[in-house]
Amino acid sequence: MAANLTTVVKSEKKELRVTRDTGVSIIGERINPTGRKVMQAELREGRFDMVRRDAVAQIAAGAAILDINAGLPGADEPALMIQIIEEVRGATDDFPICIDSPKTETLEAALSYYCKNGARPLVNSVSAETKRLREVLPLIKQYGCSVIGLCSGDGGIPKTAEQRFEYAALIIEEAAKLGIPAEDIVIDPLVLTLGTEWKAGKMVLDSVRRIVDEFGVNITMGASNISFGMPDRENLTAFFMAMCVEAGLSCPICNPMKKHEVVALRAADLVMGRDKGGMKWIKGFRAMQNA
Amino acid sequence: MAANLTTVVKSEKKELRVTRDTGVSIIGERINPTGRKVMQAELREGRFDMVRRDAVAQIAAGAAILDINAGLPGADEPALMIQIIEEVRGATDDFPICIDSPKTETLEAALSYYCKNGARPLVNSVSAETKRLREVLPLIKQYGCSVIGLCSGDGGIPKTAEQRFEYAALIIEEAAKLGIPAEDIVIDPLVLTLGTEWKAGKMVLDSVRRIVDEFGVNITMGASNISFGMPDRENLTAFFMAMCVEAGLSCPICNPMKKHEVVALRAADLVMGRDKGGMKWIKGFRAMQNA
Repeated sequence: MAANLTTVVKSEKKELRVTRDTGVSIIGERINPTGRKVMQAELREGRFDMVRRDAVAQIAAGAAILDINAGLPGADEPALMIQIIEEVRGATDDFPICIDSPKTETLEAALSYYCKNGARPLVNSVSAETKRLREVLPLIKQYGCSVIGLCSGDGGIPKTAEQRFEYAALIIEEAAKLGIPAEDIVIDPLVLTLGTEWKAGKMVLDSVRRIVDEFGVNITMGASNISFGMPDRENLTAFFMAMCVEAGLSCPICNPMKKHEVVALRAADLVMGRDKGGMKWIKGFRAMQNA
Repeated sequence: MAANLTTVVKSEKKELRVTRDTGVSIIGERINPTGRKVMQAELREGRFDMVRRDAVAQIAAGAAILDINAGLPGADEPALMIQIIEEVRGATDDFPICIDSPKTETLEAALSYYCKNGARPLVNSVSAETKRLREVLPLIKQYGCSVIGLCSGDGGIPKTAEQRFEYAALIIEEAAKLGIPAEDIVIDPLVLTLGTEWKAGKMVLDSVRRIVDEFGVNITMGASNISFGMPDRENLTAFFMAMCVEAGLSCPICNPMKKHEVVALRAADLVMGRDKGGMKWIKGFRAMQNA
């Protein structure tokens, strides 16, 4: 069994060490205009009030990293990404971030702007697709940062745990060829929905456990997809997340304003023996009572 | 990795097959006068209204086996146990049961009364203590039933996963010497409380996973002990239970009237790929909405 690796995510002012050894780190997903009409309208007017509020609120709710996505249809995405990053840094005294775009040019512009004075963001994301590996990994190497590797490839999203493992291994190997260490790869097994793929949960648990056993890398996922189309989504997602932590999930990307998910992650850390004396659990409970 | 074993628990009329392959079976814990003043008072008056109501209500809430404990201070326990069993059989059309007593004479009397026409209860419990092994296992062999094996021994309740595994192995070996197969042993790792033993959760997860890997036996536990003395017990217990199912828990002993625990177990079965099409999840959600 591989030792737990540590992924270091840094802004100029702050450093976060992501590792299963000390517990779960939440990547806050809210700074993303996709499907958010008010945020879209604000961004079109050059306003960032909601971005700034969401940044501060997510940190207060327990986020350890802020994901930033600038996917606004019709916008100049590289320029908008840099603007949003700047606003988030200002609102949060330079909190660690994750730069999130499917477009290589956006990642390149944002990294070139951000990676100064030791700042090393997490990048979201590369996959095992030949084109993405070729475009994104050299940027990760050039800027010395870390990257989320999605377990999909030229054949799309796999339907087995085995092939998810193969894609994770391929990303880690291709990164290694460029001199990027495994600790800078955070694997996302890709969560399908139980509503259409009733073995989706087991597929994730099995692939995560095997990837962690073999490589010790950190694991992220957008867990809420598991419950899409099912009743009582809140409970189903939360129990799934706790079970995934048991299997090796270390830095879920989620909305920390959803209290039940945060409670699930805190409970999982406590059960896994990473919350000495239950102090985080007790403190979290009191904070929610007073909120 | 050992294959999942099946423990068969039978009344004269009904058969239950406990196995991880098909999902969690709840052992309902409510028929127990310990700490229940109203039930104690009724039993002293020779009334069984609450026993009968609890039996029916637990089955409606999802219990697959009913635990029956007759531990009433000052009572003739063997006689009371037989009376309660008779009442439960009558109220539930002979639902499968678990006969629960620390006293060998009570177990012996109850088994002698109950084990006719193919009825095979689960027995709660034996441990790895020399005296218990010597007294209880021959009864299990004689009556051809199954038994819960507690991971404690002459040295008390162990503080490590390793020693829990050793005690489980010892019980399974001693049973085998008498010709009792491993499928008739249900292991209880013994859950300590996080409030006083902050690695209690990890200890259980690690021991369960190792015992299941090695022997494939069914696993029970009184999970709620994990949260004793902690705030937000309901959530902590429920998330712990879901994580334990991931590790191998198959037949928790709990109160099925606690809805959050039942939801946790259903979610865990769904996530583990044991609820095809999510039908049990959807049905359970609708039943709770209509309750």
